Amino acid sequence: MTVHLVGAGPGDPDLLTCRAANLLRSADFVVHDRLVGRGVLRLSSTAVRVDVGKRVGESWRQEAINELLVDLGRTGAEVVRLKCGDPFVFGRGWEEAAALARAGVDYSVVPGLTSAIAAPAVAGLALTARGRSSGFTVVSGRREAGAPPPDWTSLARLMAEGHTVVVLMGVARRAEIADFLRRAGARSEVPVAVIGDATLPTQRMTRATLGTLATAEVHPPAVIVIGEAADAADAEGMLSGLARVP
Amino acid sequence: MTVHLVGAGPGDPDLLTCRAANLLRSADFVVHDRLVGRGVLRLSSTAVRVDVGKRVGESWRQEAINELLVDLGRTGAEVVRLKCGDPFVFGRGWEEAAALARAGVDYSVVPGLTSAIAAPAVAGLALTARGRSSGFTVVSGRREAGAPPPDWTSLARLMAEGHTVVVLMGVARRAEIADFLRRAGARSEVPVAVIGDATLPTQRMTRATLGTLATAEVHPPAVIVIGEAADAADAEGMLSGLARVP
Repeated sequence: MTVHLVGAGPGDPDLLTCRAANLLRSADFVVHDRLVGRGVLRLSSTAVRVDVGKRVGESWRQEAINELLVDLGRTGAEVVRLKCGDPFVFGRGWEEAAALARAGVDYSVVPGLTSAIAAPAVAGLALTARGRSSGFTVVSGRREAGAPPPDWTSLARLMAEGHTVVVLMGVARRAEIADFLRRAGARSEVPVAVIGDATLPTQRMTRATLGTLATAEVHPPAVIVIGEAADAADAEGMLSGLARVP
Repeated sequence: MTVHLVGAGPGDPDLLTCRAANLLRSADFVVHDRLVGRGVLRLSSTAVRVDVGKRVGESWRQEAINELLVDLGRTGAEVVRLKCGDPFVFGRGWEEAAALARAGVDYSVVPGLTSAIAAPAVAGLALTARGRSSGFTVVSGRREAGAPPPDWTSLARLMAEGHTVVVLMGVARRAEIADFLRRAGARSEVPVAVIGDATLPTQRMTRATLGTLATAEVHPPAVIVIGEAADAADAEGMLSGLARVP
C-alpha cells in the first residue's frame, strides 16, 4: 500500500490523468487541498476525504499534513494526496515526499497538468511559438518565508527576447509585479492575459498590459500570462473559435 | 465535428488526460508525431492513423500537416491531432491552430503533460521547492530558423537564485549549452539530471554537473534538468524509493 502524491490538474475533471482518476476511484483516503474542485473530488465516492485546506477555520500546518500522510500510509490503506495542478509545482509536494521517504513509507508521484500551461492552452494562448517565443518561465507571485523573490530583472531581459512569463498565485501582488518588471526595463505595452477559473465552465480571460495590470479587475485564483504570447490569439483572429472551453 | 489538438503526454498511456483517452477511442483519424508511443496509439484501435513524422522516409513539411488537418476537418470527421507532451509547448501546435482558425475549421485544444514537468516529477525531482527554488524555466535546446536563441546569461542569473532550468530537445547541443551557462557565470558544480524515455518502463536518469554534461553518456529523447533541483532527491536520501516508475 502506498501514498500517491497526485496532481489534480487545473480544475476540469476530464483533464485529470487516467492514472489519477483510477487512483481516486479506488482510494481509501483522499487528503486534498481546499482549491481542488468538487468535480474532481466526486470521483472518489467511497473514500474518506480530509480537507487539509481547513481545520476548524484555519489551515493545517505543513508539518501536520506530513504527519497525517505518514500515519495513514502506515495503516496500509491506499492514500491519495491530491494537490492542485502538479504536485511538484509550487505545491510543497516535495516536502511531503521527503517526509514519507524519511519515514520509510512507500509512495509514488503522479504528475498533473499545471494551470500554468493548461490555462493559457485552453484559452488559445501558446506559451511557445516558432519564431516568436523560444521558452517560458513559471514563477510564484507569493512571497514565502525563506524563498528568494524571483529575479525580475533577468525575467524582464528574457521577455525582451520573446520569452513568456507565467505567474501563479500572483493576483494580489499584480501591481508590484508589473512595477518590478517595468522598472527592470519591460515596456508598459507588453500584453498580459489573466485567466481565472481555468478550464472550468466559469473560465474567464481578462486582457491588460503591464501598464494596466494593476487596475485590471481580476480575482484569484487566476493565472497571469505576460509577454507577446498573451496577445497571440488576437493577432491571428483566433479568439472567437477559442472562447469556449472545449 | 472538430479537429482536436491533443497532448499525448510524456509517454506512459496512463498519463494521458481522461479527455485525450476518450477522444482517441472515438476518433476517425489520428494524425500523430513520430515520437508518440505505441501504448498511446493503441487506444485508437479503430481510427485511420497518419504518422506525419515520416512520409516515404522524410518528414512532412509543417505546411503539409496544416493542410491535411484542414482537409480532414472539412470532411466532418472527428480528427485527433496528437502531439508529444503538450500541444502548445514546442510543438508547433499554435501554427496548426492558426491554420485551422484561418480556414474556419472548428477545433479544440486539449492540454497534455509536458515531459519538462512530468519527467523530473516521476524521477523524484521537484522543479520548485520551498526555500530552495521559486520557479523554473523551460527552453528548447534546438535552434530554429527565425527563433531567438535562449538568453543564457539571464538564465544563469536566475539559476544563481535557485531557479531551475529545463531543456527539452537539448541532448545533441548539451556541450554548447553547458558552455554558454558557465561562460554566463554558472558554476561547473551545478547539478544536472538527464532523464531519458521519461515515464516509460525504459526510463533512466543520468546524473552529471554543468562541468561533466558534455561528456555524459546520454541519448535523445531526454529532458535535461539543471539546478539544485537536479540534486534534491539525493540530498534527502529519497532516490531509492523513487527509482521505479509508479
